[in-house]
Amino acid sequence: MTTIHPVILCGGSGTRLWPVSSAALPKPFLPLVSDETLFEQAVRRVAQDDRFAPPMVVAGAAHADMIIQQLHDAPGARLVIEPGAKNTAPAIALAAALLPADAVMLVCPSDHHIADAAAFRAAAFAAAELARDDYLVSFGIAPDRPETGYGYLQRGEALAQGFAIRRFVEKPELARAQEYLASGEYSWNGGIFAFRAGHLLAELAAHRPDMARLVAQAVAGGRNDGARFYPAPAPFAAIAGESIDYAVMENTARAAMVPAAMGWSDIGSWAALADALTDGADAAGNVTRGAADLDGCSGVLAITDSLRISAVGLTDVCIIVSGGEVLVTTREGAQRVGKLPGATNQ
Amino acid sequence: MTTIHPVILCGGSGTRLWPVSSAALPKPFLPLVSDETLFEQAVRRVAQDDRFAPPMVVAGAAHADMIIQQLHDAPGARLVIEPGAKNTAPAIALAAALLPADAVMLVCPSDHHIADAAAFRAAAFAAAELARDDYLVSFGIAPDRPETGYGYLQRGEALAQGFAIRRFVEKPELARAQEYLASGEYSWNGGIFAFRAGHLLAELAAHRPDMARLVAQAVAGGRNDGARFYPAPAPFAAIAGESIDYAVMENTARAAMVPAAMGWSDIGSWAALADALTDGADAAGNVTRGAADLDGCSGVLAITDSLRISAVGLTDVCIIVSGGEVLVTTREGAQRVGKLPGATNQ
Repeated sequence: MTTIHPVILCGGSGTRLWPVSSAALPKPFLPLVSDETLFEQAVRRVAQDDRFAPPMVVAGAAHADMIIQQLHDAPGARLVIEPGAKNTAPAIALAAALLPADAVMLVCPSDHHIADAAAFRAAAFAAAELARDDYLVSFGIAPDRPETGYGYLQRGEALAQGFAIRRFVEKPELARAQEYLASGEYSWNGGIFAFRAGHLLAELAAHRPDMARLVAQAVAGGRNDGARFYPAPAPFAAIAGESIDYAVMENTARAAMVPAAMGWSDIGSWAALADALTDGADAAGNVTRGAADLDGCSGVLAITDSLRISAVGLTDVCIIVSGGEVLVTTREGAQRVGKLPGATNQ
Repeated sequence: MTTIHPVILCGGSGTRLWPVSSAALPKPFLPLVSDETLFEQAVRRVAQDDRFAPPMVVAGAAHADMIIQQLHDAPGARLVIEPGAKNTAPAIALAAALLPADAVMLVCPSDHHIADAAAFRAAAFAAAELARDDYLVSFGIAPDRPETGYGYLQRGEALAQGFAIRRFVEKPELARAQEYLASGEYSWNGGIFAFRAGHLLAELAAHRPDMARLVAQAVAGGRNDGARFYPAPAPFAAIAGESIDYAVMENTARAAMVPAAMGWSDIGSWAALADALTDGADAAGNVTRGAADLDGCSGVLAITDSLRISAVGLTDVCIIVSGGEVLVTTREGAQRVGKLPGATNQ
């Protein structure tokens, strides 16, 4: 049985969930879908099974104390403090360099929602088997709509525990997304990965030698402080930030995927959150948090931390009152919330 | 030349403009369309021409001080304090009983907006001529849409200064309202009237003898206090409240109307206010008051007295932040705002 080493990434600013999320309190650390925060859920998903080692969390210094608090009692957990935000490839490489070379790591974003934790774990165990055989494994999320906001994976030949990846596809136009959905060959690239640590570093050295060298220097020059590890800032600052997809996954000959149907959402906008909350919706599909009176509304998400919301006649609108701001957006418009003056001038 | 005695009515609760209007600060006393309140505008419309006598204002005791304040310098103005809210017929009859029998009175609601004051005055002078000839005269507002929220007047034979009224029509269904608009024979009943005071009282005595008697008793037993007149409470309380339309206009053989195209609105809902504010709208028809950032919106009314409003992708929605409440309504839904818990449980 392969032990899985969870690596939980806490980057990302989440401005599309403004005004609730902010630079100081970004999306992972908010109780968006339940009473637990998305980070707490991410930790708990890999905490209830002894096939998982204690988690390693990679985050910025600004959120370290919040992470310690939200880890609660997680013996053996480690925290890697990134000296700067460099996208996912350097963060994952830091973790890989701090693990034994033969450790199988499971890279999990901390700001996603997964409704079916058992399905997640089953996919993780399948991915771990592939990773042990030196595949670089991505979770392929079963799509349920022609989403244009995600990248896609096309399945190739069948492997013992999954499939080879034939190709990676950037966020498509709607017509293309509809073709992908109809074909049954495509999955969403959910940003969840399994690697053998040493293999990931070898592939990084092959495809991004500068990054691999600078990460190694940052780790070699870093220091431990209790459960925290501080990489050396100078070499880390010299890294050209890049996603793990660009840096490694799209270049390797060993890309594989495991299918995962687990009620996944990246909670990438208020519309996505509304979708994730449909279990708590009324008969007309409305979801409220805090004081809200709705009359003749359907598909409305109304969340307030203070003033009462009264809404009449609205369809598919999100109303958010938080932190002294009032946001009202259509579901379609929700993707543009991060560009609002309020979200960009925090 | 007939001198016109303006009678300005300040009844009505205006709950459909909640949360800005309230029982304590109802619609007439709010600066909704301009820097002036609707009441101040109503007073000023009849103050800039020496054919108008000083106004007589009929209102409840709760609003008396506010009215004195908003009358500013209006020499000769009188204030009739209604002991209770009894709809328009008793209010108008009180004023009629306090005026000379041959005075021509012009009854004006204080919570309407009239964009073209000169057109209003021209219609008032025409109505006054008809009233002097003992017609009971209603302003017939030229309709510009098949409105289902107003009563209609059907024109009859032509008179010197206007038309006889063939019939009064209750708020119609949409199909009927469209017929009325297409026919060109119908006007909105705007609730603006001209009467000779003695004639109005005689008609009231003929059609509502109990009301006429009780009003006469309330006036006979009333008392003056400076510019204020307090009718006797007991007889006034015994009156069965009724509108002037039901009590008199629909029963008299002398109903007449003057056509009035004057940019009239009853500001009866947030949608109506949005329509009245189109002069200040941006190219997409949005109107904002206070801090508001709109992205991809059209026909949006955004008003805030405190928190910034950010809105994305909305069409024909009103967002009102006022008095610690947040209201979001479609234009269609605006008619139902008065039924919201926040509006009814003030």
